[in-house]
Amino acid sequence: MNNRLQLFTNWLQEKDIPAAFVTSTENVFHLSGFHSDPHERLLALAVFPNAEPILICPKMEVPDVRNTGWEFEVIGYTDIENPWEMIKASFDKRNIKPTTMAIEKEHMNVERYEHIQSHFASPSLISAEEKLRQLRMIKSEKEKSIIHEACKLADYAVSVGVHEIKEGKTEMDILAAIEYELKKKGINEMAFSTMVLTGKNAASPHGTPGMTKIQKGDLVLFDLGVVYEGYCSDITRTVAYYDINDKQNEIYETVLGAQLAAIELSKPGVLCKDLDLAARNYIADKGYGDFFPHRLGHGLGISVHEYPSLTETNPLPLQEGMVYTIEPGIYVPDVAGVRIEDDIYVTADGHEILTNYPKTLQIIK
Amino acid sequence: MNNRLQLFTNWLQEKDIPAAFVTSTENVFHLSGFHSDPHERLLALAVFPNAEPILICPKMEVPDVRNTGWEFEVIGYTDIENPWEMIKASFDKRNIKPTTMAIEKEHMNVERYEHIQSHFASPSLISAEEKLRQLRMIKSEKEKSIIHEACKLADYAVSVGVHEIKEGKTEMDILAAIEYELKKKGINEMAFSTMVLTGKNAASPHGTPGMTKIQKGDLVLFDLGVVYEGYCSDITRTVAYYDINDKQNEIYETVLGAQLAAIELSKPGVLCKDLDLAARNYIADKGYGDFFPHRLGHGLGISVHEYPSLTETNPLPLQEGMVYTIEPGIYVPDVAGVRIEDDIYVTADGHEILTNYPKTLQIIK
Repeated sequence: MNNRLQLFTNWLQEKDIPAAFVTSTENVFHLSGFHSDPHERLLALAVFPNAEPILICPKMEVPDVRNTGWEFEVIGYTDIENPWEMIKASFDKRNIKPTTMAIEKEHMNVERYEHIQSHFASPSLISAEEKLRQLRMIKSEKEKSIIHEACKLADYAVSVGVHEIKEGKTEMDILAAIEYELKKKGINEMAFSTMVLTGKNAASPHGTPGMTKIQKGDLVLFDLGVVYEGYCSDITRTVAYYDINDKQNEIYETVLGAQLAAIELSKPGVLCKDLDLAARNYIADKGYGDFFPHRLGHGLGISVHEYPSLTETNPLPLQEGMVYTIEPGIYVPDVAGVRIEDDIYVTADGHEILTNYPKTLQIIK
Repeated sequence: MNNRLQLFTNWLQEKDIPAAFVTSTENVFHLSGFHSDPHERLLALAVFPNAEPILICPKMEVPDVRNTGWEFEVIGYTDIENPWEMIKASFDKRNIKPTTMAIEKEHMNVERYEHIQSHFASPSLISAEEKLRQLRMIKSEKEKSIIHEACKLADYAVSVGVHEIKEGKTEMDILAAIEYELKKKGINEMAFSTMVLTGKNAASPHGTPGMTKIQKGDLVLFDLGVVYEGYCSDITRTVAYYDINDKQNEIYETVLGAQLAAIELSKPGVLCKDLDLAARNYIADKGYGDFFPHRLGHGLGISVHEYPSLTETNPLPLQEGMVYTIEPGIYVPDVAGVRIEDDIYVTADGHEILTNYPKTLQIIK
């Protein structure tokens, strides 16, 4: 049993929970190593405190489950079989009759809930989500190295975008060029919708990429990430197209200073809120406090937004193995929008920066 | 009140259902015209048989709701407000205390289910999904013209891909070029993951695009669609790279003959299964019956897969306003994979083909 599944099993033992039924693609992948999104079909992982787990998936995916090294029971069902009857039979064979089940309440839908109620004598349901979020927060060495690869691809993507900047190009032209080059490297999934924003669009908190052309004196903002072997990266860089004015420059340097201050603090034991406040206070001291409207950053892994959340109130101490973004921004309407974002890994006594595209202000001409 | 919302309201009246609570992005869009995906935040449309509907969304989206022309109540909540309390208050003000609610059981999660149970005195829940699927099946003139635009973009995408075919190009190279050109036209969302498959990959029912290079004598299969103003298109074309052998040619002509036979039948009153069987029998008569493993097609609209389902057993009669794909395929491992797909609109006395990229076998040299 892999370490993550063992930790989750331990939790069921400690809390005296007779069964868990995990159904989201992300958490089944995290616990089992098997990645699948069978859409409306059922994917599930049943975990017990004192019995071997069971993976449930469409029958045609069973060979893929075995290829991941899964050594326990698999229930593979065809489109004409009822997976709930098969699960019930497997539980019965093991004499498991759970009175309580831990589920993902934000993922499980009412239709499946009703199947559980009718097949398992109406167990009371509790949420496994908080525990699963905590487990996913601490990355293994292997996970870290995969995320690092995803980050290198994000660095490359920004370099493609910066090279593409030219008079007359639209945001969508540049966005298209970035994703084109990534696809040629075999990357077919972005971590989220790529953002290329220029001038006023970058200065609006709700800008979306469109047919706006880059103009001299614009700041151009890139926010993007790739999915690599099931894990996400997330980087933001802002560059200048021809000379920018003093105000734009001051905003850039303020964001950069704030970002560096928060990165510098990253090590085990420091609180999440300390990082946010370091950047927030730095920006406020420069007079831009009203223009940094979002949290400092978020955890990163199988999902592009996961734990920890770097807000000004989160008292959680950093721990070795956490991966999160640090991404302060200042958005002054009609003046400038700047955000700078890196992905950080917490080491035993400090941190490692996983994204490495340069941050000194670049003036593209 | 728009026609679709009126039809849904009529259904609540006929069935004597005191309230519906619709929560999926697709169905809220269908009924209200407002398109939003606020992720974990609540989006909902409450509909009543004898009272005006209520739209519930994050507060920052309220102006967007008004811009769509929504004339009824909107509940906009901030991140520090509890939308369930606000909904409860609004129901109470109208003196609505539903004992039954129609919901989307496959969309609503258990967390929201528990909120409904606790805020509305545990109403019994019934599924609104079948009715909503039926309503979405019949397209208005406006919906048809949007889908038609999406189809023209799909035609264009195939033409880009076909032009890109050259010695040494990989599937991903061609896929990247297609999406690049679409993005330059402002299309940022595909209806599903674009497929470009060549040779053996196209002949496997589970092929995914990768780094395989196109070789002389290959059949190259494109399956793609775009999202345009909230509606999907879906086209498949197969072309030859240099001369193909007689067997490949026979398979191509068989698929094309089957596809034309099914299209020809498309008019009100004909049954879904008649179309599927027309194509299936045509293919079986040519000796390839074992190599056409999927249904003939599926409805198309806000979702890329919706009603009607064109299977060999569906007794549903076609009606004016339906839009569906016709996409027979033959996959003979190591020999050839061919699929040809068009999007069809049912008119008062026949049909219109919305995708128009040529289907005569093209030999690319």
